[in-house]
Amino acid sequence: MKKILILGAGRSSTSAIRYLSANSKHESWQISVADLDINLAKKQISALENCTAKKLDISDKASLASEIENHDIVISMLPAQFNYELIKNCISQKTDVLTPSYQTDEIFSLDSFAKENNVLVLNEMGLDPGIDHMSAMQLLDDLRAKGAVIKSFKSYTGGLVAPDSDNNPWGYKFTWNPRNVILAGQAGAAKYLQAKQEKYIPYHKLFTRLEPILVKNTSYEGYANRNSLTYQKIYGLENIETLLRGTLRKKGFSAAWNALVQLGMTDDSYKLNLKTYQDFTSSFLPASDLDIKANLANYLSLDINSETINKLAWLGLFDDTEIGLKYASPALILQNLLEEKWALEKNDKDMIVMWHEIVYLMGSELARLESSLVVIGDDNLQTAMAKTVGYPIAIACKLILQGKLKLKGVKLPIKKEIYQPILEELKDLGIEFEEKNFEKG
Amino acid sequence: MKKILILGAGRSSTSAIRYLSANSKHESWQISVADLDINLAKKQISALENCTAKKLDISDKASLASEIENHDIVISMLPAQFNYELIKNCISQKTDVLTPSYQTDEIFSLDSFAKENNVLVLNEMGLDPGIDHMSAMQLLDDLRAKGAVIKSFKSYTGGLVAPDSDNNPWGYKFTWNPRNVILAGQAGAAKYLQAKQEKYIPYHKLFTRLEPILVKNTSYEGYANRNSLTYQKIYGLENIETLLRGTLRKKGFSAAWNALVQLGMTDDSYKLNLKTYQDFTSSFLPASDLDIKANLANYLSLDINSETINKLAWLGLFDDTEIGLKYASPALILQNLLEEKWALEKNDKDMIVMWHEIVYLMGSELARLESSLVVIGDDNLQTAMAKTVGYPIAIACKLILQGKLKLKGVKLPIKKEIYQPILEELKDLGIEFEEKNFEKG
Repeated sequence: MKKILILGAGRSSTSAIRYLSANSKHESWQISVADLDINLAKKQISALENCTAKKLDISDKASLASEIENHDIVISMLPAQFNYELIKNCISQKTDVLTPSYQTDEIFSLDSFAKENNVLVLNEMGLDPGIDHMSAMQLLDDLRAKGAVIKSFKSYTGGLVAPDSDNNPWGYKFTWNPRNVILAGQAGAAKYLQAKQEKYIPYHKLFTRLEPILVKNTSYEGYANRNSLTYQKIYGLENIETLLRGTLRKKGFSAAWNALVQLGMTDDSYKLNLKTYQDFTSSFLPASDLDIKANLANYLSLDINSETINKLAWLGLFDDTEIGLKYASPALILQNLLEEKWALEKNDKDMIVMWHEIVYLMGSELARLESSLVVIGDDNLQTAMAKTVGYPIAIACKLILQGKLKLKGVKLPIKKEIYQPILEELKDLGIEFEEKNFEKG
Repeated sequence: MKKILILGAGRSSTSAIRYLSANSKHESWQISVADLDINLAKKQISALENCTAKKLDISDKASLASEIENHDIVISMLPAQFNYELIKNCISQKTDVLTPSYQTDEIFSLDSFAKENNVLVLNEMGLDPGIDHMSAMQLLDDLRAKGAVIKSFKSYTGGLVAPDSDNNPWGYKFTWNPRNVILAGQAGAAKYLQAKQEKYIPYHKLFTRLEPILVKNTSYEGYANRNSLTYQKIYGLENIETLLRGTLRKKGFSAAWNALVQLGMTDDSYKLNLKTYQDFTSSFLPASDLDIKANLANYLSLDINSETINKLAWLGLFDDTEIGLKYASPALILQNLLEEKWALEKNDKDMIVMWHEIVYLMGSELARLESSLVVIGDDNLQTAMAKTVGYPIAIACKLILQGKLKLKGVKLPIKKEIYQPILEELKDLGIEFEEKNFEKG
């Protein structure tokens, strides 16, 4: 009997919990789902086998230590800022731990400590980061095994709304943490490699530097995400010319989002107290005799009949509707508005789109490969996001408990022994990439 | 015999030290000038009466406490981040203290502590902040005493190069801390009041929101500085319609500076390692078949023959000159380049320009008043910046030691008993405003 501890019972934990429960009888597992909100944990395990809900305050060190001690493996679905302390605790208690979050330098500094204690810390085990790494490494390793020289690698992922539920002018609804969507790109300049040159994009230019991308006959656009340069080493692409990881949106989204960024509406650094959305919009505009819409169009050099202005108008940013929030940051006021306008409705489904492009030399021939993944959610619990984040981490957990993953230390899922069995099993769960090869002119 | 302690012997301390020394015999003062670099302190007091140079490490708490104990009053010319701890020490040792730095909320929280200990802490006693407050309050108090209702107050200040030394396309040279010039505006959105509406300008728009200003037949432009809204209460302007404080530059400067901001060259949040200024500029541009200058002009929607592109070219940003700095932030690379290009030459003089505009109702008549100050440096020691920062704080020090300033607590120079005698004496030192009245149509 092996005992699994899942920390965090939010929306993205659903599929991981269900997968583990479904395998629990056959594998002889007992699963604890712990959350600060016991009701959330109870709801997540209702009608599932071999699951127990627990109330746990992650800041209560004694309770956390005792829970880690009582389990064989820990899956953290907690917000990323809690992971460093948690991982340190798990290592000192010789307990393997998995997270879907970015592996910070601070977390990687625990590598020797983990090895000394014979522990595996597996990070970036979700979708993005997660499936992106695994599918990329599979393509790259396969090509390199055949003698290809990789010239360019680009990869974009988007958490979007499914086509049947896509019924607003933005082509977007919230399918995961709204705050992260509002603040996306604000952590610092985006960095990537283009034709062997390092490129830096400041936040206020990010949503203007777009690449058009066609996936299954739908037009998307990609913008650069965080620091792609670090993946040169991680993916073993030291001699590559172009390396870019980014975020996908439906075509036209970014131009309108850029208008919000230019105005200053995504700023989370100060608070204001305004009555209506019209006042909110006006506060970012210079004084003018023009009406608010014409003033904004003029200020941002936009056509007043443009799609962007239509998208802003659809949000109600020119209306005298009351904000209903006192003393909040621009970002929070915007989030509050968007949570209403971009809400997933009861029967709406979400969609994950991932797209990789590799340009390579095989002998003297230049070739191009595209690999794309489209996953649609089953319903509003087993969303595409929950499945693509939860299945990889749950499968990895199974492989560890079965003794099939023998790595130790602080790791990413970039080795064949990790990605191969996980990608294989993901196919059975309906998460499968489609590859296309092109000759390059 | 009264003893004065001046902390910090940098360039902005020159005029304060000279003023105090010149008055020392008549007033029976002994002046200590303390700096981490004793040679800097020695140089500042060379040939001056009643002055002693001291080596002092401000982080050495015991030495600092003993110096405070041995003096009757402290003038801090230290970087702003040291002032809170220093002020706390001075208050607990019942010693008055003056600074030219912004009064933070943290510093103001010491107000009751200062009052209990019968101590005066006088902040913002330099130029901007300092002379700006004093001259503004004198105009506002005079108008209000005559029954005027203040509708609008705008005030701009610039630390510039004197016309005779203005011989580069930017109309600008460094006359104070270069790093502060590079990072200006990055502390958060600028905030002001326009026609009773609060206005917010994000950093990336700051240098496009300009007001043209004519002072003594020279065309300047002003951009908003920090948070003007807080001055509504400080200046007693609760019912005002427009309130804006800002920074002055020669006409055309901001459009070119904005190009640097748009590119991302003022970012201080990450480090890069590039060989030439051409590489540096390229790293902020999308890939293109155009040459670097045309690519930049196209990216920023500028005419390739525009003054802005000429200013960037004059800096050498398109040249393959070596940067000579390894692993530095964009802001530091830019600073390094500008320190060479914008250096004050030996015989160059600096210039301070300050401009206030007040619109007011007198009965039913709308009127407008402009008040402007232009100060030119004497030489490269008694600069306009050193004089306008140093004289106000030194005069205030004299008034306190003479027993003419009886205020206690944490204060700004906004009361008549402070600003009146200081502005009066500044006139004798050649720092005098010129007022013009206009009827408003």
